[in-house]
Parts: sequence; C-alpha cells; structure tokens
Amino acid sequence: MRVTGQIPEATVARLPVYLRSLLEVGAAGISTVSSVMLADRAGVNAAKVRKDLSYLGTYGTRGVGYDVEYLRFQVSRALGVANTWPVVVVGLGNLGRALAGHEGFGERGFPVVAGFDIDPDKIGTRISGVLVHPLERLPELVANLGAAIGIIATPAEAAQEVADHLSRAGIRSVLNFAPTVLALPDDVDVRDVDLATELQILGFHLQRANPTNDDQSVVS
Amino acid sequence: MRVTGQIPEATVARLPVYLRSLLEVGAAGISTVSSVMLADRAGVNAAKVRKDLSYLGTYGTRGVGYDVEYLRFQVSRALGVANTWPVVVVGLGNLGRALAGHEGFGERGFPVVAGFDIDPDKIGTRISGVLVHPLERLPELVANLGAAIGIIATPAEAAQEVADHLSRAGIRSVLNFAPTVLALPDDVDVRDVDLATELQILGFHLQRANPTNDDQSVVS
Repeated sequence: MRVTGQIPEATVARLPVYLRSLLEVGAAGISTVSSVMLADRAGVNAAKVRKDLSYLGTYGTRGVGYDVEYLRFQVSRALGVANTWPVVVVGLGNLGRALAGHEGFGERGFPVVAGFDIDPDKIGTRISGVLVHPLERLPELVANLGAAIGIIATPAEAAQEVADHLSRAGIRSVLNFAPTVLALPDDVDVRDVDLATELQILGFHLQRANPTNDDQSVVS
Repeated sequence: MRVTGQIPEATVARLPVYLRSLLEVGAAGISTVSSVMLADRAGVNAAKVRKDLSYLGTYGTRGVGYDVEYLRFQVSRALGVANTWPVVVVGLGNLGRALAGHEGFGERGFPVVAGFDIDPDKIGTRISGVLVHPLERLPELVANLGAAIGIIATPAEAAQEVADHLSRAGIRSVLNFAPTVLALPDDVDVRDVDLATELQILGFHLQRANPTNDDQSVVS
C-alpha cells in the first residue's frame, strides 16, 4: 500500500465518496453525521471511517458524530478541491465526447480545457463544447493552458504513443480509458479505468451466484 | 473483505488485469510468464500474484513461472469468460452512447442487447447500433433478451428510479455511472464507476506532489 503524506492510498480513494456523502447530507440540512452512516455509503465499516478521518486529524464526538460542515472543509482541503486542475482529453470518439462533456468534471475542479485528435474532420471543431486540436499542438497548449491531467480516450493501439506525447508535454497525471497497460516514467501518476473490467467483476459474481448472506457488496 | 467461493474480492478485481496481460503476452508468442511480470502489470507485488493465483489452484513452477495458455484458461474459467452476459444500457446520452458502442464489451462476453431512454426522439432509433426502447418495456425485454446486467448512464437525479426499475425487472447486477449512491436490495450487486472520483484521486496526488522515491503507483 502506497502512503502519501501519511494518508494510505485506500483512504484517499474513499475521500471522494465521503465528500459526496457530506455534500448530500449537507444539502438535506443535516448538520452532524455518524461514522456508521458514512461507512454505509462507502461500503466499509465504521471503524475504518474513523481511521480514515483520523488521518485528516478529525476524530468526531462520541455519541454525536462529525460536524458536516467542518468535515466537508477538511476532506475538501485534503483532496485539494479548492484547486483547479485543467484537463486535456485525447481521442474524441464516443467516449472522449462523453468525457469532454461530463458535467461533474468542471464542477469538481477539473475543467476540460482542450481536446486532441488526429481526425482532420474533428480538428478545429468543438465537441461537447471543447475545441479539438491536432496532437502536434499538445506541448504548446499544455503549457499555455496550464493543463495538469491528460485523459486518454483513444483505441488501445494508439494509447502508448499518446501517453508518450502527454509525458513529453509535461503532464504528470494520466487517466487512461484505453484497455492497455501503459509504460510511463515513474513520476507520471497513471490511473486505469477499464470499463469492461467492471463488467467482468459483475460477471464473476453472476457466475458464482450463490445464496450467501454476505451483504458487504463493496470491494474492500 | 468479501470472499466469494473462497476468492477474495480484491483478487477478483485483479483477475481481469491478469487475463488481459496473459492475452497480450500470448499474442507476443511468449509461452511462460513469471509472477514478477504479472505483478508489475497489476501494480502489486509478486507474492500477491502467487497468492491470487493459488485461489485458482495454480502454483506455477519455481524458476520457470506459469504456462501462459493454461493460466489463461484457468483465469478465464474463474471469471466465467466462456459465458455471455447480455447487458442493457439505460440513458443514451453521451456516456450511454459511448458505452453502447464500446467494442470491448461484446468481445468479452457482454453484448449490449438493448437501450432504454425516456426521450421520444431517441426511442425507436439505433444508437451505436443498439435499439432504444421506452423505459416501460424494461421488464418485458429483460425477460425476452435474457439480460443479466444493467448499466445506468442517466443523470444522478434519475438513477435511483432507474435502479428500482432494473431491480423489479429482475436484474441482479448493476453498473452505475451516475454520481449517486443507490439503495437496492441486498441481492443486487452494484458497482459504482464515478469518473470524477478518479480525477479527484489524481488531484490529491498532484496537490501533494512531493519528490518521494515511492514507485508503487497503484492502489493496493
């Protein structure tokens, strides 16, 4: 398990879930929240929630829980939500189009500032509101727009070349939707999202469909 | 950690990664593979790979590794890849369109057999090759087409209602792309894919960007 500034990676992965829950209960006018409730939403047990939040220096009040507003502030700060990380999307096929137009990105501090493709018919047009440029302009535009994150939404066979382009352009965070394993320098942080993998995990359970009483349906 | 037929959930989540690696090395004409190599691709250590594969009853040969073809057979069998699990997609906006047309799904045994939307302009048309039906026809078509998995690609505010529809229609496996937590019966297996969460995790690391020598860049 990688530990980043004392916060384990598995905890980091749960922080966005906590934040979303806190925004929801806050919107519902609830001012305190228990670790049990947060646990339920994150699919872990309450002890793990308390442990996770302790990394942020937050301990809640026994019998009362956590102050929603204050906890939201702390989780947001830990996640750097106050910051804005401009994103570029490479590959404006169906998936790239969906990602470029994904409402949740801009709202959460990840505005899509440029698109890149090799298709001359797409270059110069706006797709989901995002202007599409030729791949050759990547270094210049990453620098000018201050892009921090590159999303790869190309076919698998193009992904490594695109990843190399992104890396050379100075991008140090890559979200890869192409179903292939990328080789990148150690200082580039890559997260793979393979949509078929998620289906395969569901398929695994379908195949084994057995009437157990195990109700923890979230990967730990 | 949930254990399914003795295979821990975290192991299940890595099996598709192993399978993909095995297909790639097999295509490259390599006939044996070491746990170290598989470990590198899955972002875990070699001991964990050996442990994972031991759940499939596979132990490899010391100093030689695993037979690629045989291991592929075993992982495929564990994942139920020989089976076909028909999928329905609800919500044919940009994301639903991308999912309906995702090449990797059909190839891996998850053909998209029907789409559902409430937009009269979409109903009756084919989107990414998938015929779109009104939501009311869900129970009938799930039964007739033998659909096993429902993908929710609607806006967050519609997701719970759609999830209820899917559940009532007999769907027991849901892949949820809407950024909301769904309440469903215990016998429905839900996997949430929140694309903005992935960006937030990258954002966390960007914020903390510190020159450590830690090169394990994958969540354990």
